[in-house]
Amino acid sequence: MSRAVDRDQLVEANAEFYAAFEAGDLDRMSAVWADGPYASGVTCVHPGWTRLRGRDEVLRSWALIMANTEYIQFVLTDVEADVYGEQAVVTCKENVLTAEQGGESGILAAGSIVATNVFVRVGGNWRLLVHHGSPILNDAEEQ
Amino acid sequence: MSRAVDRDQLVEANAEFYAAFEAGDLDRMSAVWADGPYASGVTCVHPGWTRLRGRDEVLRSWALIMANTEYIQFVLTDVEADVYGEQAVVTCKENVLTAEQGGESGILAAGSIVATNVFVRVGGNWRLLVHHGSPILNDAEEQ
Repeated sequence: MSRAVDRDQLVEANAEFYAAFEAGDLDRMSAVWADGPYASGVTCVHPGWTRLRGRDEVLRSWALIMANTEYIQFVLTDVEADVYGEQAVVTCKENVLTAEQGGESGILAAGSIVATNVFVRVGGNWRLLVHHGSPILNDAEEQ
Repeated sequence: MSRAVDRDQLVEANAEFYAAFEAGDLDRMSAVWADGPYASGVTCVHPGWTRLRGRDEVLRSWALIMANTEYIQFVLTDVEADVYGEQAVVTCKENVLTAEQGGESGILAAGSIVATNVFVRVGGNWRLLVHHGSPILNDAEEQ
């Protein structure tokens, strides 16, 4: 398989992670994350949180977050995707528009998150192994 | 090579990253990071910063940060290290004690950072490809 096809499929897998979150669909989110022998190494850092580790703990956090998110939309920018054999790293900026469950109607919050997403290729498909998202407090590009 | 030896060398490479920062030694820090064909994929997110990409840009940031750090000490806890062939992921909590250059004598700051460090094995040595550090604002373990 060519490197360009590898990379396209990787960018698509990365987009599906955010699409699953936007849809609030736990089945789709479960399918995004690596399973089987990789389950114990599944790791997630939500912005401002400490590390969650193990597929079950990570998916529980997503169930909770999605249940408490009324609306969320991502526009991804600065997407960089590098394939290293059967592993890959995607980094991107998440431009987020969100409303929390039970928040005042029409009140949205916007913010920028920087994300590192590590994927592994299993059975020809890229599955998410590590997600680390963090709030951008100090934008070096604007200094 | 056994998996246990792989992992020990990985944990040692991860510790050397923090030791190089503590020593304020740019040569040691340069040796930690991947080079050659990996140089363009070298990526670093300092806590609260946006993404820096490319070996040169990342090492420039370290030169700047180390020049402005009077004293820093790390105690790493919750270190998890997973080897996936020639790539590896280390996650840990950085318990940091620091003093900034020009700060009032004796004034130290302490904080907790969660870090994801992705390594590649080059010529038998683990080299750092991606570092993503972020401040812990919401400690789920304490909720």
